Amino acid sequence: MHPVTLTTDFGTASPYVAAMKGVILSINPDARIHDLSHSIPPQNVGHAAQFLAAAVPFFPAGSIHVCVVDPGVGTERAALLAEAGGQFLLAPDNGCLTPLLIGATVRRLAEPKSWRVKVSATFHGRDVFAPAAAHLSRGARPADFGPILRQWVRYEPPAPKVGPNSIRGEVAFIDDFGNLITNIPADMVRQRPRVLQIGRQSRKRFGWVRTYGEAKFGTLVALFSSDGRLEIAVVNGSAAERLQAVVGTPVIVGFAR
Amino acid sequence: MHPVTLTTDFGTASPYVAAMKGVILSINPDARIHDLSHSIPPQNVGHAAQFLAAAVPFFPAGSIHVCVVDPGVGTERAALLAEAGGQFLLAPDNGCLTPLLIGATVRRLAEPKSWRVKVSATFHGRDVFAPAAAHLSRGARPADFGPILRQWVRYEPPAPKVGPNSIRGEVAFIDDFGNLITNIPADMVRQRPRVLQIGRQSRKRFGWVRTYGEAKFGTLVALFSSDGRLEIAVVNGSAAERLQAVVGTPVIVGFAR
Amino acid sequence: MHPVTLTTDFGTASPYVAAMKGVILSINPDARIHDLSHSIPPQNVGHAAQFLAAAVPFFPAGSIHVCVVDPGVGTERAALLAEAGGQFLLAPDNGCLTPLLIGATVRRLAEPKSWRVKVSATFHGRDVFAPAAAHLSRGARPADFGPILRQWVRYEPPAPKVGPNSIRGEVAFIDDFGNLITNIPADMVRQRPRVLQIGRQSRKRFGWVRTYGEAKFGTLVALFSSDGRLEIAVVNGSAAERLQAVVGTPVIVGFAR
Repeated sequence: MHPVTLTTDFGTASPYVAAMKGVILSINPDARIHDLSHSIPPQNVGHAAQFLAAAVPFFPAGSIHVCVVDPGVGTERAALLAEAGGQFLLAPDNGCLTPLLIGATVRRLAEPKSWRVKVSATFHGRDVFAPAAAHLSRGARPADFGPILRQWVRYEPPAPKVGPNSIRGEVAFIDDFGNLITNIPADMVRQRPRVLQIGRQSRKRFGWVRTYGEAKFGTLVALFSSDGRLEIAVVNGSAAERLQAVVGTPVIVGFAR
Repeated sequence: MHPVTLTTDFGTASPYVAAMKGVILSINPDARIHDLSHSIPPQNVGHAAQFLAAAVPFFPAGSIHVCVVDPGVGTERAALLAEAGGQFLLAPDNGCLTPLLIGATVRRLAEPKSWRVKVSATFHGRDVFAPAAAHLSRGARPADFGPILRQWVRYEPPAPKVGPNSIRGEVAFIDDFGNLITNIPADMVRQRPRVLQIGRQSRKRFGWVRTYGEAKFGTLVALFSSDGRLEIAVVNGSAAERLQAVVGTPVIVGFAR
Repeated sequence: MHPVTLTTDFGTASPYVAAMKGVILSINPDARIHDLSHSIPPQNVGHAAQFLAAAVPFFPAGSIHVCVVDPGVGTERAALLAEAGGQFLLAPDNGCLTPLLIGATVRRLAEPKSWRVKVSATFHGRDVFAPAAAHLSRGARPADFGPILRQWVRYEPPAPKVGPNSIRGEVAFIDDFGNLITNIPADMVRQRPRVLQIGRQSRKRFGWVRTYGEAKFGTLVALFSSDGRLEIAVVNGSAAERLQAVVGTPVIVGFAR
């Protein structure tokens, strides 16, 4: 039985995730449901896109991933079913799947037979995505859900700018530890930087490390993240707090002396 | 194998949920356990009651739901096993099951054979409810757990008051987005309200929408919630924060010009 | 199929737990994964050790527990695979397993065949522990993972000091309710204390109860925790907040008049 995963911004004090699980199990009592996250920041499509890009590729073929971060629920935005790398992705058409759609077959969920009979205007997680995922997990064919789409909304994060002696990027993602994952790929930073500027704060003193434990508690360090990007961290602390950084804070890496 | 669901106010930094899962799996290694929530606000029976009422009906017959929000643990309060709509509900007798008990067969968990050998005075989740749910999931009959009860504690939320040109209700539930779900059923609000008063704040300017995305970011909107009640929201924001509303804050809907 | 449990300090807004689940399911599509916690306070090995000690013993033989609270990831610290009481434990060698290792067979995870091909310096949860757990869940033998270890890091919490008329301990664990679990075992407190001192606050007025509901809302009470230690609580409130206590805050129990 292929796994069905759930990624939402619903939180868990609300009954929304629970209702989705009930709908899935009502259609497929044998479904194997796995929570990926219900802590995506509310309506934060960029966070969801990066979250999924860092998680989905590790799942086996046949996995069914449902992402409900859906500020446009109930409007004309499409609901998507994508086949990518042998896996299935269901989500609103708002960009949250972008990094995973290279080479994907994308369909519009357009077949009410795969939905709950009454579809609420505000909760397609329960009424559209959960039942579609459950039917898919029981062996329904993607073509049964709707027609192929050629266009979809793309999440386009800014690319870093490379100068003669510096790279200008930004904080792309902040994890629960407060580590700052930048949009600067590791292979742009082959030599050790001399200066790091994060927002208005410029630092010449920082550790350049392979992993956190190579520097002392509280040290500011730069390293490569587990998904291959420049990361700025504070050993056993929060770089986000220390540097008052948020997603979008500029990060400049300087190589000149 | 029927699902066993868990709903608690235990949080997840504490080992209590984990211990319950261990107990269930020790009795039934094939149990399929699903987390519904461990973020019910501490000891908040009303929150739990509304949470379960919005989630349980979506589950298939045979599902076994355990709710441990239990300020009276270890006192004389009864532990309940209810059969309702083909599903099973296990919870302390404090009202958290009320909306689901219409037409239910309710028993008192009174049979120590279904408990752990030593029952702590403060953790019936682990020592009473988890083992009973596990035995039930292995096919034990409800009658084995204890006698039928005729009386139980009821959670009685206030009903809205209908006047000639207004309805006076209150905030009944606040979800993780900060949306305010009132106690006013949708069918009481067939015409568009002219004025909304939430606590001390009176608003004539608000959107009356089918769904959030029909109004601009930051707009105050009124709509029908996915479970059919009047809901007050801020598009891509928190109505609870904006209006400084809490559960119990009065909500008055005015229809006069 | 034996359960595979996950205990981390990763939080769930980050994609780390999700990636681990993907890796496990890629190796063993039938794995039954159970979340124990992803809310261990960051890098808090002592919290993890107490959490696991209060949860793991309730699981059945054959269970596979993965704990990733790993401030030393990527350094020379060993990765452990322990067999204890018929269960399996995988974790970094930093003390988080200590209370469970009495009589255990402990091995060093030293066999790269059980890891992902490329091991990141900062994410052994995904690249070392998850794949090892998945292989174990498919029936690999512990001896296949590496050699037996005779030494490992121990987490040694302070023991209480017993005086003629008092016991001096400390707050060992604070649960999500704000209950203070001390390091003083129940059998050291057979008679009713006269005075409790928590940090700088001394109290002669407190309830000595079996369970919370025996005293009124808001009362400070002392009782025995569900794992057999002296616990200090506020009925339907947070003792941690009321007493401004943190882990390590001294707790003195006085028996003299």
